[in-house]
Amino acid sequence: MKKYVVGVDVGGTNIKLGVVDPSGHVIVRNSFATKPFASSRIKLITALSREIEASIVTAGLNKKQIAGVGIGLPGLVDYEKGFVRFLPNIPGWRGVYLKSILQKRINLPVFVDNDVKIITLAESKFGAGRGVRNLICLTLGTGVGAGLILNGQLYRGEDNAAGELGHMPLNEHGPRCNCGGYGCFETYVGNRALLALASRLMGRPGITLEETFTLAQKGNKKALLFWKTAAGHIGNGLVGIVNLLNPHVIIIGGGISHNEKFLFRTIRKTIVSRAMSLQGAAFKIKRAAFKDDAGIIGAYVLVTNAQK
Amino acid sequence: MKKYVVGVDVGGTNIKLGVVDPSGHVIVRNSFATKPFASSRIKLITALSREIEASIVTAGLNKKQIAGVGIGLPGLVDYEKGFVRFLPNIPGWRGVYLKSILQKRINLPVFVDNDVKIITLAESKFGAGRGVRNLICLTLGTGVGAGLILNGQLYRGEDNAAGELGHMPLNEHGPRCNCGGYGCFETYVGNRALLALASRLMGRPGITLEETFTLAQKGNKKALLFWKTAAGHIGNGLVGIVNLLNPHVIIIGGGISHNEKFLFRTIRKTIVSRAMSLQGAAFKIKRAAFKDDAGIIGAYVLVTNAQK
Repeated sequence: MKKYVVGVDVGGTNIKLGVVDPSGHVIVRNSFATKPFASSRIKLITALSREIEASIVTAGLNKKQIAGVGIGLPGLVDYEKGFVRFLPNIPGWRGVYLKSILQKRINLPVFVDNDVKIITLAESKFGAGRGVRNLICLTLGTGVGAGLILNGQLYRGEDNAAGELGHMPLNEHGPRCNCGGYGCFETYVGNRALLALASRLMGRPGITLEETFTLAQKGNKKALLFWKTAAGHIGNGLVGIVNLLNPHVIIIGGGISHNEKFLFRTIRKTIVSRAMSLQGAAFKIKRAAFKDDAGIIGAYVLVTNAQK
Repeated sequence: MKKYVVGVDVGGTNIKLGVVDPSGHVIVRNSFATKPFASSRIKLITALSREIEASIVTAGLNKKQIAGVGIGLPGLVDYEKGFVRFLPNIPGWRGVYLKSILQKRINLPVFVDNDVKIITLAESKFGAGRGVRNLICLTLGTGVGAGLILNGQLYRGEDNAAGELGHMPLNEHGPRCNCGGYGCFETYVGNRALLALASRLMGRPGITLEETFTLAQKGNKKALLFWKTAAGHIGNGLVGIVNLLNPHVIIIGGGISHNEKFLFRTIRKTIVSRAMSLQGAAFKIKRAAFKDDAGIIGAYVLVTNAQK
């Protein structure tokens, strides 16, 4: 009997839950703010247990019909040990054996993983990367990360910490990054850097990325230059990946990725002009297929892959 | 019955052949200069056939005892199609179905692959990477390349062109590279770049890397500065790889890698100081275990993997 999965997407702002049916569709959704629970690990775990159980009831199901619960978290997670190592944006989450704690509470198999890896599983199985053997799933936002599907499998790295594309240096002597490195990709294309670049190029402190997008659509030259500069950096950051990993597809999601119009062409052109000829001819750029549901659908893939 | 393999390592200068016994030891070796045969593909293929057959006889074997022939070539090779796409240093090798041509001539299974990938197989199976699930095998020389073992498998990429670590940019606006890119790793740490750096720092045009090594051993400050600068660039180029791929081992081989003393400590320190903390704590640097035999032993692994 094919079973259902409860997917949980823990973010710094909101926690989203969903029940996914055996064909990968979300049949029940629920979300709540992270903040009231973020102060205490136990409060958050209690809220998660309650909401997971409630969502199963709302879906008209019983626990026997649930294959498991998949949870994506924004930070360093040890998938194999079911261990949350560190979540930079949720205080107090350092060294939590979330898998075993939650399993005891709800009496269902639980799997935990890094959120970007889970989004990558969603895109790979049901989204823009369906059927693709080698792909990079780039997520743009305050943080910049990536999931890697290589030889048809999610590549986790030695400590489940692979994919930190945001912390590949773009310049040896570039600006210092929060991570301790210099010139990291994120210091050029993370939201904070983009906002700083926008206010500088536009001469308007405090301008939002949405505003630059609206202005670019109206043909504002400074706004167009801003997006071109941003896309150039994104492209430059991907050149090395294309040469190193020779991927078939690069999926771009998160924050500014809806702004395909002013980004993808320049990203593509930059990569093609700088990458090696074979690798530069091999790749396609695609926009992520999922937005809000990515974490929940990915959690479904995480659980079903684990139980294959 | 366990069988023998003939391994062939085609280089721009020499072609090395060896017969490898079922336990991975080279029992017969042979080599000849590439140049006399490089002018004509057919001449080279004829020489290969003759030498392969001769080496089997020299080893006291017959063809029934040979599992196959593995051939490593310095350039773009399509392993699956058995197709040599392009060899930058051996004229005329563009678009050669070497596998099928040679199979017909010698009546043995033939497998062809890129030489760095084959060296990586050797290190992974019998060398510095034995038992390691995730590793990078960096080869330093005129060209700079890498082989990747990820999730315990050789990662080839979409067109068997993965591993071009030498063409990951170290700086967005760095020097133009032969490959068409800018600021590639190879433009800083390839032999040509190192020689230029050495003559500049030492104030001695035409100085060799061996000389700088000897001088460094005697405590010459300029020579020590040269090696430190070189190692710093190598380290900087590996920071991104460590963050992206979270490898367990980085194997360094080729050209200057025997110069462990003045290289590995600075490489390690540079990576640790700049990489993310978990990834930066996870990796070990090891010197390649094989030198001259790497290509032949790797060819053995290539053939036996293909016939598993």
